[in-house]
Amino acid sequence: MIEDKNPQRTPLSELGEFKLIEHLTDHFKITQKSTIKGIGDDAAVLNFGKKQVVVSTDLLIEGVHFDLSYAPLKHLGYKAMVVNLSDIYAMNAMATQVTVSIAVSNRFPLEALEELYAGITTAAKIYNVDVVGGDTTSSTSGLIISVTAIGEVEKGNEVLRSGAKPNDLLVVTGDVGGAYMGLQVLEREKEVFKVNPHNQPDLSMYTYIIERQLKPEARKDIVALLKELDVKPTSMIDVSDGISSEVIHLCKHSKVGVDLYENKLPLDPQVITTCEEFNLDSTTIALNGGEDYELLMTISQEDFPKIKGNPNLTVIGYMTEEDRGMHLVTRADQKIPIIAKGWNALNQQE
Amino acid sequence: MIEDKNPQRTPLSELGEFKLIEHLTDHFKITQKSTIKGIGDDAAVLNFGKKQVVVSTDLLIEGVHFDLSYAPLKHLGYKAMVVNLSDIYAMNAMATQVTVSIAVSNRFPLEALEELYAGITTAAKIYNVDVVGGDTTSSTSGLIISVTAIGEVEKGNEVLRSGAKPNDLLVVTGDVGGAYMGLQVLEREKEVFKVNPHNQPDLSMYTYIIERQLKPEARKDIVALLKELDVKPTSMIDVSDGISSEVIHLCKHSKVGVDLYENKLPLDPQVITTCEEFNLDSTTIALNGGEDYELLMTISQEDFPKIKGNPNLTVIGYMTEEDRGMHLVTRADQKIPIIAKGWNALNQQE
Repeated sequence: MIEDKNPQRTPLSELGEFKLIEHLTDHFKITQKSTIKGIGDDAAVLNFGKKQVVVSTDLLIEGVHFDLSYAPLKHLGYKAMVVNLSDIYAMNAMATQVTVSIAVSNRFPLEALEELYAGITTAAKIYNVDVVGGDTTSSTSGLIISVTAIGEVEKGNEVLRSGAKPNDLLVVTGDVGGAYMGLQVLEREKEVFKVNPHNQPDLSMYTYIIERQLKPEARKDIVALLKELDVKPTSMIDVSDGISSEVIHLCKHSKVGVDLYENKLPLDPQVITTCEEFNLDSTTIALNGGEDYELLMTISQEDFPKIKGNPNLTVIGYMTEEDRGMHLVTRADQKIPIIAKGWNALNQQE
Repeated sequence: MIEDKNPQRTPLSELGEFKLIEHLTDHFKITQKSTIKGIGDDAAVLNFGKKQVVVSTDLLIEGVHFDLSYAPLKHLGYKAMVVNLSDIYAMNAMATQVTVSIAVSNRFPLEALEELYAGITTAAKIYNVDVVGGDTTSSTSGLIISVTAIGEVEKGNEVLRSGAKPNDLLVVTGDVGGAYMGLQVLEREKEVFKVNPHNQPDLSMYTYIIERQLKPEARKDIVALLKELDVKPTSMIDVSDGISSEVIHLCKHSKVGVDLYENKLPLDPQVITTCEEFNLDSTTIALNGGEDYELLMTISQEDFPKIKGNPNLTVIGYMTEEDRGMHLVTRADQKIPIIAKGWNALNQQE
């Protein structure tokens, strides 16, 4: 009935995720005194007194964000929390509370939900956050999880996507590409399982990357480390959609360009060997494979001595003037433009 | 695969919604200094400085909470906001920000989402809240909307469900049962439409109750009114599931009983005539029909002169000692126990 009334139809696929969000939300006006930063960063910054409050929210849908045939519910509950907390840490804030809402169809027994909540509880304990609210309802089809995280940060210590300056260093935490390759292994095993359900696969050589996919961690430790090192990044974002996507966000919000060095990308040996096995280019995976939940930040060159040699932080490039554009500098010293991959583009192409 | 690993199965229907939430969340411990009140009320209370921050969240699922064959998307966006803001006002707080996440399948054209956001924008404007975050993602089936609202309240002014005392007056705002009867009319018209799509129904005699269902309002005005009247309720809750359900929440959280008077229930004439037309008992509808988003509160007897005669507030009973139980006092002066209706119980029975 509704669709009949709308003669004009623009398929969502035409816009892609980022354009869609922008299109739908860029007209929201800020009117509250207490709203310091609204839509457009990892989390909102609110001011209710001495501290800034940060809020972030995510929606996870069965069949879109997870596949219950290989994601144990406990890990899924854990991951749903981590995905959100990661956004809070990406503001240089400490997460303090979350609300968790779930919708389930009646094909789920109580025990399944208990498993899910066990994962949520474990994450709440490990990351030291209180679960302070939520909604539980029925669903007509699959499982839906919605998490909103709230955090606090000293006034002026919040790090947005918009503060990068030319000559700042581009720094990433940990290593990248693992979660995506873990997913490739799990997808392959699912296909094998369909053919031979009694096959017990030996996944011991993939433990790290499978864990990166099923039970990722958010980099709370980095917020503490940066404080300890007395480094305030000029901009920061978490790596949920892949470095390419995230560095483009930093560049666009900060109005700068970037030179990113292929040979600096931190890769775990398991990512390299699995890429070889799947005949995939590890640089493509490192740049476009999402869900690593590492932090990507820019820091002032004068802070370099403070982070030099730290095993958690890798300098992978530097920011340039905006008109220089966004480039990957290959091992062969060629410059290739960095392109945004859209909504699930990676899954469709490879 | 997961269900095979769980030999023990307890159907969710065995517990009902409230028991389920309690079962899954009652083990969450509060560890953050800033968490004043976690799960168990309409919203969480957080303390970040001079003011208390309140947070509330809701998940709306197509086919469960709304039917797009008669709910225009603009009204739906509006209602999704109202449902959540209502929880903030039920804390005696003022809503200040919201985050809105949506998941949609590709059967929705862009224009449909624009309609949805138009409703969200209108509500944000009318209720004076900032939309400060959200997530937009794809869905495998229908439309899913998740809203988290944040509000502020002076320290000590927050009203929980747990403060009612024996002899306090039970007060409800506006009138009740309208949203449920509006739904009955819409459901009937949907059936007529299936048989004869060219029939143009005359709904002019149902405008009030249809609006109560499709475009309800949250009682922000009541929070202001209570302040103006210098009345701080001893407990408060919003009427989303029906007065029966909500008064039971107040009684259980406050450890009191209640005598609720049938002849005091505020009903709009349209509710009474439509109940007659549908051959439904208007008291049953007033008590169990949900989605009115009025506020149900208890106030101290000494505050009665302040509210007496106010057209927005109706005294419908008084609280008693817990061991007196929870009763409806009928027009025939009989006492009937008030019983909780479970998860969609009303829809299944009538």
